[in-house]
Amino acid sequence: MNLRGLVCGPGSVAGSNSPARRPEVKKLLNDPADAVADSLAGFALAHPDLVRLSSTPVFVCRAGGAVTGKVGLVSGGGSGHEPLHAGFVGDGMLDAAVPGAVFTSPTPDQILPAIQAADGGAGVLTIVKNYTGDVLNFETAVELAVEEGIEVASVLVNDDVAVEDSLYTAGRRGVAGTVAVEKIAGAAAYRGTDLAGVAAVAERVIANVRSMGVALAAPVVPHVGGPSFDLGDDEIEVGIGIHGEPGRRRVPAAAADAVTEMLVTPVADDLDLGGGERVLLFVNGMGGTPLSELYVVYGRARRLLEERGVTVSRSLVGNYVTSLEMQGASVTVLRLDDELEALWDAPVNTAALRW
Amino acid sequence: MNLRGLVCGPGSVAGSNSPARRPEVKKLLNDPADAVADSLAGFALAHPDLVRLSSTPVFVCRAGGAVTGKVGLVSGGGSGHEPLHAGFVGDGMLDAAVPGAVFTSPTPDQILPAIQAADGGAGVLTIVKNYTGDVLNFETAVELAVEEGIEVASVLVNDDVAVEDSLYTAGRRGVAGTVAVEKIAGAAAYRGTDLAGVAAVAERVIANVRSMGVALAAPVVPHVGGPSFDLGDDEIEVGIGIHGEPGRRRVPAAAADAVTEMLVTPVADDLDLGGGERVLLFVNGMGGTPLSELYVVYGRARRLLEERGVTVSRSLVGNYVTSLEMQGASVTVLRLDDELEALWDAPVNTAALRW
Repeated sequence: MNLRGLVCGPGSVAGSNSPARRPEVKKLLNDPADAVADSLAGFALAHPDLVRLSSTPVFVCRAGGAVTGKVGLVSGGGSGHEPLHAGFVGDGMLDAAVPGAVFTSPTPDQILPAIQAADGGAGVLTIVKNYTGDVLNFETAVELAVEEGIEVASVLVNDDVAVEDSLYTAGRRGVAGTVAVEKIAGAAAYRGTDLAGVAAVAERVIANVRSMGVALAAPVVPHVGGPSFDLGDDEIEVGIGIHGEPGRRRVPAAAADAVTEMLVTPVADDLDLGGGERVLLFVNGMGGTPLSELYVVYGRARRLLEERGVTVSRSLVGNYVTSLEMQGASVTVLRLDDELEALWDAPVNTAALRW
Repeated sequence: MNLRGLVCGPGSVAGSNSPARRPEVKKLLNDPADAVADSLAGFALAHPDLVRLSSTPVFVCRAGGAVTGKVGLVSGGGSGHEPLHAGFVGDGMLDAAVPGAVFTSPTPDQILPAIQAADGGAGVLTIVKNYTGDVLNFETAVELAVEEGIEVASVLVNDDVAVEDSLYTAGRRGVAGTVAVEKIAGAAAYRGTDLAGVAAVAERVIANVRSMGVALAAPVVPHVGGPSFDLGDDEIEVGIGIHGEPGRRRVPAAAADAVTEMLVTPVADDLDLGGGERVLLFVNGMGGTPLSELYVVYGRARRLLEERGVTVSRSLVGNYVTSLEMQGASVTVLRLDDELEALWDAPVNTAALRW
């Protein structure tokens, strides 16, 4: 495999060349086989100030390329979770993102050039959500990158408290907490922290972040064509994964306040959150739930945390780690200290997160 | 009616006090009657740096209150279109937003105090989407505000090219183009432009912005309980309104490229866009369509405009003017000149739009 010299350049933006075939499912797509390519082409065209797209192999990198002397950050995983990860490429967060097919891990031949493109000479941190395919493929790519003389450290995000092992995972799954890992490690890298330091900050976020989600209705995977799972008209799935993997249990649909408690309690218990602590509270939409409902969940989650004596000092509400158009939401809580809070607050300029 | 002295203060954040009843529809809500109040309470708690919420009557205003000497901007309309309008309250855009019940106009007794709260002594511009209820209720509130000595100008947004008159409208409907009006007029106000000047800029945006939308699946209004309209399994509604009002026609589901053309062509024709012109291209999600699909539409829309010789110099892609969880999207095109482009680029700091 000779992938040296592959860079993410302005000339490499391209969509699919297939004639527009309509998908069998009712979606704003052409041929489902082109869904990821078409979407990434549009994404790159919409954000030329932030990103460049490489088409063969497919990955997204920062418009300006690697920042010399800065630790590079690379993440990736199956598509279908937009804006994760490409939406977080830019200043202050990721240097490259590697999208696989929908709900499918990217391959090592995509990941290796992304690592190369992100390397500014200070090494690269890969941020991997804990799914078996992602873990294996990132490991292979990292080995190849190391052979080429790039210093690489890796962290594994496993914030989902719902299940210990699951359909695609040994150990806990990585879900919405990934946004906090990428934001905070990204800020550390932009401060000039070295690779070991950036990895240590990322590990500290991982140690202090937990999530749990709920689904009200399943998404439709374009090339599959039907709902990913069946839920009764009056049923919700508590502890759902971001690929529709089974959660903890199915329960009758309930009021938002009750559902929110089913998410916040295991998260806060697992973090062993106590009075006097302060946190980031992140309510994430799964893609098909109105923003107005996410704020209802946020309000209740915040009150539940406050009842424990916990202060919510930072907040994020919106669709950041989705599962296509799945209806539902997840609650993520990150225990903060002065350093993590400052890194969260640091400037960021990406398509999906900007301040 | 004596509403003098009503201000939007930090003490006025409150949700509903009703016990959490579950809605009959499967949604992350409590009692549907509390949907708007619960959501706004969460919204205000999540963004204390940006907004304050008044509960009686309900409106949202800038956290810092009116800016002395600056023209105040007030918008509003039925809820269910989040983040419109409250998500655009902050620096560089709106000073106050007035949410009605879901898909229902706010009342004059909500609008008047919002105008009062936005008045920094330089007058207030109200930005109203062209729906009969909104128009009447804003007119009544404006008359009362003028009687109280506040200078008020009003503009009516009517960017939807789909239909001339519709269920709730005499003349064209106001849809996603509203975001451009609020952003650009907001920037003009922050530059210190006077009320006549801010109104003139807003009118210039309105004269140069057009939109058209498509629905793939209907939303469920919480207090109604079923889909807002029926669409066959293989049908889409071209020219849909943001309350599910009928559009131009129902057609068989088609590939994204073909559907995008059904939206871009009437928009570009209506604007009489010609070679050498430059535009903002805004692909708006209706709430329940994955972001990845919006980028597919964006890519095709951009190519169609470029084929006309039009340059897309600014872009926006995301869920900004939604219809609950309706599946679909709209395409908005704004003809730009140097001034409008500079005002679009000016800094903005709101919950939903920030740069």
